[in-house]
Amino acid sequence: MASLGNSTNIFWQECPVGKLERQRLINQKGCVVWITGLSGSGKSTLACSLSRELHTKGKLSYVLDGDNLRHGLNKDLGFKAEDRAENIRRVGEVAKLFADAGLICIASLISPYRKDRDACRAMLPDKNFIEVFMNMPLELCEARDSKGLYKLARAGKINGFTGIDDPYEPPLSCEIEMQQKDGVCPTPADMAAQVVSYLEEKGYLHNQ
Amino acid sequence: MASLGNSTNIFWQECPVGKLERQRLINQKGCVVWITGLSGSGKSTLACSLSRELHTKGKLSYVLDGDNLRHGLNKDLGFKAEDRAENIRRVGEVAKLFADAGLICIASLISPYRKDRDACRAMLPDKNFIEVFMNMPLELCEARDSKGLYKLARAGKINGFTGIDDPYEPPLSCEIEMQQKDGVCPTPADMAAQVVSYLEEKGYLHNQ
Repeated sequence: MASLGNSTNIFWQECPVGKLERQRLINQKGCVVWITGLSGSGKSTLACSLSRELHTKGKLSYVLDGDNLRHGLNKDLGFKAEDRAENIRRVGEVAKLFADAGLICIASLISPYRKDRDACRAMLPDKNFIEVFMNMPLELCEARDSKGLYKLARAGKINGFTGIDDPYEPPLSCEIEMQQKDGVCPTPADMAAQVVSYLEEKGYLHNQ
Repeated sequence: MASLGNSTNIFWQECPVGKLERQRLINQKGCVVWITGLSGSGKSTLACSLSRELHTKGKLSYVLDGDNLRHGLNKDLGFKAEDRAENIRRVGEVAKLFADAGLICIASLISPYRKDRDACRAMLPDKNFIEVFMNMPLELCEARDSKGLYKLARAGKINGFTGIDDPYEPPLSCEIEMQQKDGVCPTPADMAAQVVSYLEEKGYLHNQ
């Protein structure tokens, strides 16, 4: 009899159609592209642009957007430290399922703490977690302020806002880093192309 | 500014690749096949057999098994009433994401309470929730007792076991019902064929 955490009497069901067979069916390899960075750093823009580019190549991807999931799966969670951690854990678990289904799962979340991101990485088999760091200066993100949140945070109307009064811990060794060159941001298309090149090179876009 | 449940300042990100485009790519329509019934009624067997049959037809499906998810996404949940409800809610939310991704998502859970199943149904657009009721007699399930759980429940070593000391509420109007004929159970292949026929007839296996 199995006993795990709060669950006992839970058995593992093996299914005759596995990840390898699904990957063969859609001619790609499942993985998680985890986009992390400050609010306003361009995570959602990259996620959309990447999903568009993959679709054009006939590849099936799915975007898990941190904000969107807070309307559904994670609607019981707030922004306390433990809720943030649980939010990221659940997105990691769901991303893992999508990768297992054979999809290229694009997760887009601020995910400010290294340990939470690393916990998601640890859920996946080696190399199937591709961390993309949107390394944009706070000043730029704050100047964009597309959601008006920095303004609210500076006015003290939001507490614990990443980059203002809560830390962002940059990755120590991410797979891909996006940054300005000579003060110019890469375009969404450029950023998507950079990730697609990586996926191509590592063999995720084919199953041979 | 948005405010939902415990979440504020959450914006909805629209992505340029949507469900329709994903469905076109893999030539099928996303939906949830929700298999409900007593422990030992054959839910996992049908889920496996159905995923195999769909795969043979070149269709991409993914099985969400209640027990398996308790090792990951739902490992923080036990078997208290509210934990059971939350378990089913999360599986419903994840199933919805898979259907949105374009997959035929096969959820296999005892899901004993009508209101929990109906809440999952309500998450999905009309007709995309296909409830399959494994209507097998308790005596049969208990005689099978493939996991040895009925024995433990009868011995009082498990409390709140569905069918023994906790109720199973059968669906009032499910899409598909599996039952014995003249005291004989349908084979896994027969049951899978019945679901596949339904999916075929309702247009889920093509996108034209």
